[in-house]
Amino acid sequence: MAKTHYKLIILGGGPAGLTAGLYAARARMDHLFIEKGAEGGQILLTDWVDNYPGFPEGISGFDLAEKMSAHAKRFDLNSMFGNVISMDLSEPVKRLELEDGGSLTCNALIICTGARPRPLGIPGEKELTGKGVSYCATCDAPFYRNMHVAVIGGGNTAVQEAAHLTKFADKVTLIHRRDELRATKILQENAFDNPKINFIWNSNATKIQGTDGVEELHLRNNDGEESILKVDGVFVLIGVLPNNEMLPLESLKADDGGFIPTDLETRTAVAGVYAAGDIRSKEVRQIINAAGEGATAVLAAENYLINLS
Amino acid sequence: MAKTHYKLIILGGGPAGLTAGLYAARARMDHLFIEKGAEGGQILLTDWVDNYPGFPEGISGFDLAEKMSAHAKRFDLNSMFGNVISMDLSEPVKRLELEDGGSLTCNALIICTGARPRPLGIPGEKELTGKGVSYCATCDAPFYRNMHVAVIGGGNTAVQEAAHLTKFADKVTLIHRRDELRATKILQENAFDNPKINFIWNSNATKIQGTDGVEELHLRNNDGEESILKVDGVFVLIGVLPNNEMLPLESLKADDGGFIPTDLETRTAVAGVYAAGDIRSKEVRQIINAAGEGATAVLAAENYLINLS
Repeated sequence: MAKTHYKLIILGGGPAGLTAGLYAARARMDHLFIEKGAEGGQILLTDWVDNYPGFPEGISGFDLAEKMSAHAKRFDLNSMFGNVISMDLSEPVKRLELEDGGSLTCNALIICTGARPRPLGIPGEKELTGKGVSYCATCDAPFYRNMHVAVIGGGNTAVQEAAHLTKFADKVTLIHRRDELRATKILQENAFDNPKINFIWNSNATKIQGTDGVEELHLRNNDGEESILKVDGVFVLIGVLPNNEMLPLESLKADDGGFIPTDLETRTAVAGVYAAGDIRSKEVRQIINAAGEGATAVLAAENYLINLS
Repeated sequence: MAKTHYKLIILGGGPAGLTAGLYAARARMDHLFIEKGAEGGQILLTDWVDNYPGFPEGISGFDLAEKMSAHAKRFDLNSMFGNVISMDLSEPVKRLELEDGGSLTCNALIICTGARPRPLGIPGEKELTGKGVSYCATCDAPFYRNMHVAVIGGGNTAVQEAAHLTKFADKVTLIHRRDELRATKILQENAFDNPKINFIWNSNATKIQGTDGVEELHLRNNDGEESILKVDGVFVLIGVLPNNEMLPLESLKADDGGFIPTDLETRTAVAGVYAAGDIRSKEVRQIINAAGEGATAVLAAENYLINLS
């Protein structure tokens, strides 16, 4: 029978989980690293990572994910693919239920399930997702060669991806509900200098229309005026939602947004349970601090496990 | 007259400061980065960095420091060499006094002054520092070719550096005050497997003796028995002390060890002042979390500065 109990389980394989995996494997802890899809998490949705310290010229998201994964595996990371659908954290031995009907137990758990794009929640969005509505410019930009696309959002991701889209699309219209961007200055400057990027300020998307693909984006500005933008694609880049469906939010005392509060050492409200990366209740969500938190979580968990035995 | 006021000053150039510098420069903030010696901080004292995620084969401390520095400079880091000897954080505009008599002011300050090796505090230690007593195996190991050296300590650094020393010394004796090491398992296993490393357990160093260089290390074990070890060098690797001499510890509410408490977003007790890296009051001191905190601090400071104006 396969082993089903581990001292430490790391759930999720983005930069926080991969760093936790590296630290746990290197420390020769009895560990299991679980990822349900591809290792790298949201890094894989990023075309170019320019601010992960140590890569002066930047690095592609794909390459960084691959390097982080190879790094952990060099130290014999014990990993499996699996989809955890629920868990019971009420006892000292924590129990995780898998989609395939199996279950796993552990003494310490590091939650690195991350976050995912926030949808607009307007008519047509769901129906046309994958048919012109996208949450990942990096993934889908090449489909819009010589076309006109809309980007909705005003933060770093929206502005960065608008610039990325101009490599393919003829015209990119960025729609923001305020009259100025939230993105970092340098990204703003680059966007304002880019002749392919246009801006529509103080406006919200109200409906996406089309038959086999996106044809029209309906807008309403802050004065109540409606307008229609003819576009071939809509990129929705308005923030993230926590991947918390498998978590017992009440015992973890999740915040209003569903993110998990922790102390400085990533400890959650449940003894022996840690949260690192984008799932954590915090203000700054960057690859470098997700990675740092993964390391912190393992050392906190190691300390907890030593004191158990 | 040279500019003396900046919106943001980053003090200290280890991984936290360099990452803060990268983020501040990339965000085109009005910033100044101050380092008093060489950029890289304690990374420069590390021979080989094996756990900075993204470098699967590891990287030398020197190379990692250089890459982090080049990364920040690619975005036009505004840096100066200078030694800050005191500061006044009691007003919204913070004031830093330099050793050369000059002074600088800023609206937000990120403290990344780091930490330094803790001394033993025994007779002979000070007198023989640089003449056989060392706090940096990476720096001084090559001087001990074919000799016998003692390493004092039991944590990751001590055990890692003992292994490094065997590349040069014939024999390395590791002296630890307990009967087991604190270091990560994999480092312990490597050390136990290394025929050049010997261990003396449950013992403290009481005196270092020698005329022009180290000749004898005096030990006392936990039963009170004294012994003398003939060695050519003593490497003291027993932890770190905060570099806080220039800081107003009372207003920053420094902890008993002299480290600076912060919240999750690196905010200190003083509005507009942030602490990142080893100077921060925390349990885990790793390059990767220092770097993550540097990024978090800049975004917290940026938010503070926006709300000021």
